[in-house]
This record gives sequence, C-alpha cells and structure tokens, in this order.
Amino acid sequence: MVDHIRMAVAGVGNNVSALLQGIEYYRPGPGDPSLVGVTHPELNGIRVEEIQCVAAFDVDPTKIGQPLTEAIHGSTNNFPQIVDLVGESVTVEQGILSDQIRPSGVEQVVQRLRDTEAEVLLLSLPTSRPAAALAYAEAALSAGVAVVNCSADPVAREPGLLRRFASASLPLLGDDLASQFGSSLIHRALLDLLARRGLQIDGTYQVNLGGNEDFRNLRDAGAPKLTSKLNVLSTVPGVASLSVIPSGGHVPFLMDRKVAHISIEGRGWAGSRVAVDVRLEVQDSSNAAGVIVDLVRIAADGRRRRVGGFLGAASTLLKSPPPAEDGWER
Amino acid sequence: MVDHIRMAVAGVGNNVSALLQGIEYYRPGPGDPSLVGVTHPELNGIRVEEIQCVAAFDVDPTKIGQPLTEAIHGSTNNFPQIVDLVGESVTVEQGILSDQIRPSGVEQVVQRLRDTEAEVLLLSLPTSRPAAALAYAEAALSAGVAVVNCSADPVAREPGLLRRFASASLPLLGDDLASQFGSSLIHRALLDLLARRGLQIDGTYQVNLGGNEDFRNLRDAGAPKLTSKLNVLSTVPGVASLSVIPSGGHVPFLMDRKVAHISIEGRGWAGSRVAVDVRLEVQDSSNAAGVIVDLVRIAADGRRRRVGGFLGAASTLLKSPPPAEDGWER
Amino acid sequence: MVDHIRMAVAGVGNNVSALLQGIEYYRPGPGDPSLVGVTHPELNGIRVEEIQCVAAFDVDPTKIGQPLTEAIHGSTNNFPQIVDLVGESVTVEQGILSDQIRPSGVEQVVQRLRDTEAEVLLLSLPTSRPAAALAYAEAALSAGVAVVNCSADPVAREPGLLRRFASASLPLLGDDLASQFGSSLIHRALLDLLARRGLQIDGTYQVNLGGNEDFRNLRDAGAPKLTSKLNVLSTVPGVASLSVIPSGGHVPFLMDRKVAHISIEGRGWAGSRVAVDVRLEVQDSSNAAGVIVDLVRIAADGRRRRVGGFLGAASTLLKSPPPAEDGWER
Amino acid sequence: MVDHIRMAVAGVGNNVSALLQGIEYYRPGPGDPSLVGVTHPELNGIRVEEIQCVAAFDVDPTKIGQPLTEAIHGSTNNFPQIVDLVGESVTVEQGILSDQIRPSGVEQVVQRLRDTEAEVLLLSLPTSRPAAALAYAEAALSAGVAVVNCSADPVAREPGLLRRFASASLPLLGDDLASQFGSSLIHRALLDLLARRGLQIDGTYQVNLGGNEDFRNLRDAGAPKLTSKLNVLSTVPGVASLSVIPSGGHVPFLMDRKVAHISIEGRGWAGSRVAVDVRLEVQDSSNAAGVIVDLVRIAADGRRRRVGGFLGAASTLLKSPPPAEDGWER
Repeated sequence: MVDHIRMAVAGVGNNVSALLQGIEYYRPGPGDPSLVGVTHPELNGIRVEEIQCVAAFDVDPTKIGQPLTEAIHGSTNNFPQIVDLVGESVTVEQGILSDQIRPSGVEQVVQRLRDTEAEVLLLSLPTSRPAAALAYAEAALSAGVAVVNCSADPVAREPGLLRRFASASLPLLGDDLASQFGSSLIHRALLDLLARRGLQIDGTYQVNLGGNEDFRNLRDAGAPKLTSKLNVLSTVPGVASLSVIPSGGHVPFLMDRKVAHISIEGRGWAGSRVAVDVRLEVQDSSNAAGVIVDLVRIAADGRRRRVGGFLGAASTLLKSPPPAEDGWER
Repeated sequence: MVDHIRMAVAGVGNNVSALLQGIEYYRPGPGDPSLVGVTHPELNGIRVEEIQCVAAFDVDPTKIGQPLTEAIHGSTNNFPQIVDLVGESVTVEQGILSDQIRPSGVEQVVQRLRDTEAEVLLLSLPTSRPAAALAYAEAALSAGVAVVNCSADPVAREPGLLRRFASASLPLLGDDLASQFGSSLIHRALLDLLARRGLQIDGTYQVNLGGNEDFRNLRDAGAPKLTSKLNVLSTVPGVASLSVIPSGGHVPFLMDRKVAHISIEGRGWAGSRVAVDVRLEVQDSSNAAGVIVDLVRIAADGRRRRVGGFLGAASTLLKSPPPAEDGWER
Repeated sequence: MVDHIRMAVAGVGNNVSALLQGIEYYRPGPGDPSLVGVTHPELNGIRVEEIQCVAAFDVDPTKIGQPLTEAIHGSTNNFPQIVDLVGESVTVEQGILSDQIRPSGVEQVVQRLRDTEAEVLLLSLPTSRPAAALAYAEAALSAGVAVVNCSADPVAREPGLLRRFASASLPLLGDDLASQFGSSLIHRALLDLLARRGLQIDGTYQVNLGGNEDFRNLRDAGAPKLTSKLNVLSTVPGVASLSVIPSGGHVPFLMDRKVAHISIEGRGWAGSRVAVDVRLEVQDSSNAAGVIVDLVRIAADGRRRRVGGFLGAASTLLKSPPPAEDGWER
Repeated sequence: MVDHIRMAVAGVGNNVSALLQGIEYYRPGPGDPSLVGVTHPELNGIRVEEIQCVAAFDVDPTKIGQPLTEAIHGSTNNFPQIVDLVGESVTVEQGILSDQIRPSGVEQVVQRLRDTEAEVLLLSLPTSRPAAALAYAEAALSAGVAVVNCSADPVAREPGLLRRFASASLPLLGDDLASQFGSSLIHRALLDLLARRGLQIDGTYQVNLGGNEDFRNLRDAGAPKLTSKLNVLSTVPGVASLSVIPSGGHVPFLMDRKVAHISIEGRGWAGSRVAVDVRLEVQDSSNAAGVIVDLVRIAADGRRRRVGGFLGAASTLLKSPPPAEDGWER
C-alpha cells in the first residue's frame, strides 16, 4: 500500500470523466474486485484506485465553480454515467485561457498546485491549444509537479522544456495519447497479417465516426490526427492505396462512442480476391482513460524516485514521444 | 534455373485446379512477371512455374480418362477458370478407392510413378479417406517418391511410416494444410490484440460459409475441422466464451469462395463495451494452393538433397505436423 | 378501461418471460408512460398492461411448483431480467407431456382453466410437440377458452378443430408466430427493392445465430423453420440462388439475442456489381412477445364478442394461418 | 422497331461513359440478348440499344477534339471499360464554359444540335454549374431539342423556362437524377420497416465513400446533396437522430465504386435493443446510367408525340422534379 497519487487535471472533458469514474469503478468492494479492462492492475506498486484528484482547471464558465463530480457530466461532455462519484469533491477552478495567457493566471495555477500538494498535472486539453499547454507545463515546473500531456500539441517534444524538467527531476510525459484499443491498432494488425502472407493489398480505407466534441472538431481540422494515423499505417509494405479518414463525420447519437469502418481489398494466389471488412465500436474516452491511468502512475512514481524528463516506460503509450536521444530515463 | 519438379497428384479437386492454374498464371510473360499473392517467388532456388504435373489419379468416373486440363473443371469442382492451360496434358488415371484397396491397384500407381519419373506425390484427397491416403503413401515409398499430404487424415503422423520415409531419404510432409490467409488466422490475431490490451472478451464467434464440396461435407461431419480450429483459438487468455462453426452452411452461389463472419464482444476500461465485427471473403482453394506450392518445392528439394522424413521448414505450413521428437530434418 | 384479460400459458420459456416482463415494463408510472417498441399501445380498446396471467403449465420439473416470476428465469431460459415482477404470482403447474398424453392430465388442465376463469390459453411450446399442442387446444375448447398457438405445429390448421372452435364461438389463432422484426422481414424487403429496380440477384444467403434453446434445436431439426423462411423469400422474382440457414449454429454467449448475417450479390446496369451485406441483431424473444401481445388481445376480444374460429386480424401476425376459405371471421 | 433516338450529351464524365458502354453491352448478339440490370428493356416502344449519340460537348481541353469513345476514359474519368465501343465515333466539341458564357458559344451549340438533327440533349454537368446548364437549355430550345438535366442545379424547376419548353412542345425533364439503387433507397426502406413495426429508432447514420470526382467535390461542397438525402429520409416518423454524410471521404482505390455504411439503432418490445448494420457497394455511374436511359427515352418519345414541358412519367426518376402544378403532362 502506497500513498495515494495526488493528481491535478487541466481540462474537464470526457477523458477525465472516464478516468475518474473508472477509478471509482475499480475500487475494491466487499467481494473480489473485478479488474476487467485494465492493462496493469498494479503499476510500480500503485493500484488503479490509488489515484486521487486534488485539483481541476477548466475555462468553460459552466464548469468553473462546480463540483468536479458534476462538471464531468456538464456542457458538451457525453461520456455516460457509470458510477456515482461519492465523497467530497474538488471544485473546478478557472484555468489558463489559450488565447489570453497572463502571468497572474499562471501564478494562480502554480499556487493551487502547491496548496494541494499535487504530484502530477494531467493535461487533457483539446488539441490545438499549444500555448495554454506550455503555460500549464511551466506552472507545473515552478510548482515541482510532474506533467502528462495527452494532446497532440508539442510539450514533451519541446527539447528545452524537457531538459528543464529533467534537471528538476520531474517527469514530463507526452505527447498525443495512444489508444488502449483503437482503429489504427486493428488496421495495422490486419495489414501486417496480409503482407506477411504474401498478399498484395490493392487498397484499404478506414473511416471513423463519433458523437463527441473530438469528432466535431476533427471533421474540419483533422490534419494532425490524419498524419499521426498515417504514420502508424504507412510502413506496411505492398499497400497500393491507403485512405484514412480520422473523422468521416459527427454523428451525435453515438455520444462518446466511436465507430470505425475498415475495409481491405487484396489479391492472393493467382490473383484471387481477398476482402476484409471490419466494424469496430469502442467507447472513445475509455480508450484514453485506460492509457492515462498508466501514464499518471509512471509520472508519479518517477517524481517520487526523483527521475525526471521523459521516461522510457511511457513510450508505447504515446503516439508522438520525444526522440530517444533527447534523454529518456528508465 | 533448376530442372522442373515432376509432380504427381492424387485427387483432382479444386485445390489442384487452383495450383495448376496458378503455376500457369505466374509463368513469366514478355514483360515483367507479376508475382502478386505468392509468399515465396523462389524457394530453395525453385520458382513457382518450375513445377510440372506428370501424373494424376482420381476415382471419379467422369474425370478418369479425361485430360487433366479439363478434369479440373469437371464434376463438382467449382474453382473458377483463371487461365487457359495450354500444351500437352496428362490424362487422369484410375486412383485408389478408399473402400476397396487392392494390391493390384496400388501396384499400378507405383508403376505409373516410376514410368513418369515423379519426384513428389501430392495427396489432395477429401478428408476421411485414411486408408487410401496411407496406400498412396506406401506406393510413393515403393517408387522412391516424396509425399505431401494435405488432408487431416494421419499420414505424416504415422511414426512407423515416417521412419521408413526417413530411412529411404524421402520427405513425407503432412498433415492438414494451413491456409495462406484464413478465418482462424484473423480471428486469432484479433483475440490476441484484445487480450494484450487488457480487454476482457465476453464472447466471440466465427461462422464460415462456402459453396464447394468441403462445405457440404463439413456441415455434417465437421468435427475434425472444429477441433483443429479450436486448437488455434483456445489458448488466448481471458476469452469467456468461444464458438467456432467450421461450416454454418453450404451456400452454392459462393462456389469456391469462402465467407467468414467473426464477432468479438469485450469490455475495456470501466467495463465499457468493445465490439469487433469482421466479414472475410477469400477464394478457398487459392488459400490452399498458395501453401501447397511451398510444400511441393520443399519436398522435391529434400528428395534431391537426399534428406528424408519430416522437414522442419514445412512445420508452419501444416496444422498437424508430426511431433518434433519424431525426427524432423532441417 | 376494460376488465383485464385473464390469460393462461402453456410452456414457460423465454417468450413468456419477455411477454410478462414487457407487460410490467409498460405499466404506466407516475409520469408519462413510454410505449416504445409497441406496435399497438391499445388494441380493441385493450392496453398492453391489461393482460394478467392467471395460470401457467410446464413439464420441466425444475419449474413446476415454482412461482411463475422465478420460473421465467429458470432452467435454460436466458431472456434477461428487465424488470422486477412484483405482486402475487401464480405457481407453475404440471402440464401435458408430449409423449404421454393421458385423459386425467388433460382433465386437470380443463379444471384449472375453469377454476381460474381463464379467457385465453397461450400455447408457447417448443416446436415439434404436435400431440401436446392439440391436447391443450382440446382442453381449452372444453373449458370455453380461446387459444393462441405460437409454434409451427398445426393447430389452427386442423380444419375439424377450427370448425369446432368456431361453433363454440371461441377464437383459435395460429400457427407459427411471425416476428415483430426479424431476418426474413429485412431479407424480403431488400430482395424486393433490388428486384423492383431491375437488378438481377445472382445469389443471396441468410445465416442466423443465437444462444437460446431454439438455436440449439434448430441446428439439428430446422426443417420446418427452413420451409417457413423459404416461403417468405422464394417468391421474389429473378433470384438465381437462395440459401437460408435458420440456425448456422448455437452461440451460447449471445443468450437470447439473435444475429443474422444477410448477403446479397446482384448485377445492375451493364452487368455492374451490387453487393449488400447486413448484420441484424435483435432480442429473439422480444420479437415474439411484441406479436403475442396483439394475438392475445385479439383472441380475448373475439371471445368477449362471441366471434369464434380464426380471426382475420391475426393473419399478418402468423406465418402459417389456416387458408382463408376455412371460415375466417372479422 | 423505331428510328434510333438521336442524343447529344453535354459533359463527358463517368455517367456518359456508363451510359454509352451499357447501350453497347445490351446490343443483342447472335444468341438471346441478356437484359440483366435494366428496369425497362423497352420503354414507349424504344429499346435500350436504340439510342445513338450524335454530338458531345465538354470543356476539358484533354477531351475536346478526341473521339468520344476515347474521351469517356480520359482525364479523371474512372468508370471501368466494360465493352469495346466500335464503329464510327463522334468527336467531342468545345462546350459552354460555366464562368464565361458568350452568345457565340451558345450559337455554336445550337448550330451543332441542328446539324446533327439531335432530338434530346442530355445535360450531365458537374453540380454547381447553374449558368451553363441554363445556357445549354436555351440552346436546345432554340434548336428544337428536348432536354434531360441530371444535375441538382435548377433547370426544369425554372418555371418560365419550363413554360417555354411546353409551348414549343418540347420535353424538359429534371432536376437531380435519382439512383437506380442507392444508399438513400435502402436506408429509407429499412427505416420505414422498423417504424411500421412499432420500433423506436434511437439513432441512425449513413456515410458514403467513393473514388470518383463526385466524392472529391462533395467532401467540401456537399450541402445540396445532403439536403436532397435528408429530404428522402427525414419523413420517417420516430427517428430520434439522423446523420447523413454524403461524402465521408474520397477513397481513390474505389474508383467509380461507391460504398455506403448504414447503421440503425432502435428499441423494440420492453426496450430491447435492435441493431441493423449495412454495407452497400455499387458502381456509382451505373446507378445513374440505368435511370438516364429511361429519361432519354421518355424525352424523345414526348418530342415525337409533340408533348412538351415536364412529363409525369419522369417524376420518380428525379429527386427534385418541378412542382406538379407547373403543368406536368402525361
């Protein structure tokens, strides 16, 4: 039994909702605890339920001032309610506005992180808030707090910043969360399988649909996501044509669910046709939370052991980790 | 450039049709040869088109006496015509009847194998003809010919027989052909992927449909096939319920195509639902031919190098190879 | 507001479980009642929740003597628990054994129907119990009770029996329940659509999978079901090949859910390919209950109005109604 | 046997390619003609192959001056080659530029229509060329030629223009071609089926993918197409949420094929879940050509019988016909 991890969160969206509800979901009851769906029930000696949220920041006026237990279901959040979050809740506080970063705002965050004795700051901002993400990271560094960045904006990939975290013996883990189980993973596995068997892949597509805010944003501004997905898939040899559509559209009734349609057409022996069609349905934010829960534990453990910078154990949990030569620790 | 492999075939079904048409299909033309769909364009120095059929046996009266180039499209065979098989064709001869094995019949096969200077006998009989399969193997041994057994009947798994082939420096490769790319392969890859990510698999099914004779037979007598498929899948941890249906039914219009529907239901983080649904469509006999073409080359090469018994290079191409302790050669 | 219908049931399987739980589910609460999923909230002036079960018969020793509210979840029944059935429950009584029909057993049923003042007897037996089904119908006739037969065994199609019900002014509705929404319905609609547009259908299949007892039985004894499904589909013009597989296999984890895979391949303008692939998932017994609830109300209303024999309003709710010339009433 | 219809075409894209190749495909050979995929082998006494192309206009410099038989495979056209178009071919001529409409250009078209004695002008322009479409229609009116407009731009819906065609006894048929068999048709049929059975539809989506120019354009400018598709679907009662995505993305390897993924989630008896998932694959331009072939025959027949304006027989073949009060003829 270790001391609970004291975590602060910036951005109270679906991912944080899934994370906090999941931590409660896995809290052992009178009977045997079920740990279905958790990759590591215990990581560095820390169990899932040994994470505690001590502070929360957001910029949505309808969330600020609300108990976090209510704010996770507010505004455009649509991850379902799985459990009742009981006990005392922190209150959501004014966070750093991406288009209006002021020293006083950053200082407030530093102060709050200190007051709550936070160990890890989880950055769960929407993509394309690079300035705000960096400002939060600076605040964490000032307050002596480790950072996990989930968005695709470059934070851990800022070499100067990463070195300063390393010098301060504070972990800085990022960027761009990998999914626990997503469409790129399945797509990649299937393409690999066909290629290994000598099949020619004439063409393949992947189109993703969902009902949360990510899908609304991606439809119009999906370029970074597309690049990231193409990186995963484009190294399979012998794929004649590859189309990846991160957001084919916003489908409100899916709520926080995500549906991916994957199709592969190839040719085998004597040119005979092979066709594979897949429909994948997942809870989008659960996929994120299952990975965040590992990153937060890796970051807290590193800080406690006074190992800073990027930690190698996090590398497979992120789509865009910093290059290895930038001083990974193990 | 090596001497062409002199191959005899027993059982003129869809698999032999796919094999012979494929060999023709891959014959280099004036331009660059396309080798799409071939796992090994060259194996032990032997190219795909360097296999030549010198004798063919069958027990179907409508095929006996016919040119092999016509018999491959006869009776219940329904692999499509992909190429015109040109040139002189061997004539299909009376083979060994499974329920009426007579020394004279076996002797005829021995004689024919000697006359045609065959190097490899390909056993492509329907499943559940164990006596005929063994009789063909004995004939090959007498004639100094290597054997490849595609069916699930035990031939290479007969330890005494395997030793006698080894002593005679003749390869004996079997049993039960693996597919180049089939439903068990995909199903296994997906289950592995989910299990590795910590997902709980509540249930999964696989149902296969096809229009060739295999599917008609399997619907009623699919037990060995079921066992073989379950072997592939049952070792994935955390699968609560697994249903495999080798033949959900005979669907005539599919002809030699095979369709598999695979469905997986699981739970991830905080019990959230994950569902994967796959439809796979392949040309059934092409999947076999793509593997046979490797086995025949491995067998011929072994015989030429005077290495007998089971050859390790064949092990991943077969679902039920003999145990390794039974004297594999490499 | 009418008097509640007094219904007796023979066969306490998933369908009766779905029916009784649904009746409770639709009972209006303090707020507005939701009648989602009901074709006719009110039929002949009778609302869904105005059906009351007054007697229940079964031959399973583990159900006999149990409260009906528990027996619906017993033995191999696997329709999920949707609501708590509260209030006083009838006790399941010994029913008529299909292979051992004795006058005393029938007389017990007659007596029980009279004692409970039942108006309708719902026959919800497994298929292939023709003698038991007829014995129950005789008992109902003796007791002055209308009958609804859900199974494919001929009861309403026995012309002599139907006439005797008509003479007694008692409705006799059967046989073989249509689904509220099933695979044949969708398959038929799609084939019709293609045919109307001038497309040629080269081939089509439908394979059904499920985890309840029906699917276990059908795998081996699906002939009547197959005939009934072919009847629905075989009249579409221009279908070159039609394969219907009522049970492709028993898939336990599906429980009472049913999955149908439907595939259609056709050709349109200038021979161009058209392919339609459907996956349908329904709760099998819910599909039945949604139709039973109408049949029971039609039967009770007929009996109250003293209109006997087969009633025309039931014809679209049954796959094999008696021929119209056998004296339908309206 | 009638005189062949003399047709001129404006816009030499995939649809015209599919139309012309199909007319050749259906030309009776020595044996019995196969008319697979044609809704009306004969319409108003005119057979499919009795349509002849006498003039062709386009604005693509790589097509102008080419034989029509080659231009249909040129530039971004990717409908496959199905038949060899033999015989003498017309040459593609300079058409009317949408952004630069000059009297001399229009006059050239008038002259050409007169010289070739065209009876019908088929407008097969990309969507969003309203000025060019109207200019072509004016040219046809001057030359005494009937018009069929396939695009969504308003031509037949211009009341003044329609009246002038009516006065001149010339048919004017449009706008916006219905598909012979498309995703909206199937989607509508399935939603209707569920609604008729009393099922509640919680949500449904349709996402379309394709590899032709339409899909590239639609991804960015799909608004009119979306409106037209929503019109078809939005009148089904009880659909809680409907998402239609005319182009989820441009998938080059699909070429002229179109894939639609349709998903429907609903609830039936006692709230039990119903899910229908469809994958539809069609040849996009074949779907158009199968309808165009009817419209051209209706237009030519009307002109020959001297019946002008909009003809009622065309109404189901178009998504946006003019309102009935605008003087339809029959």
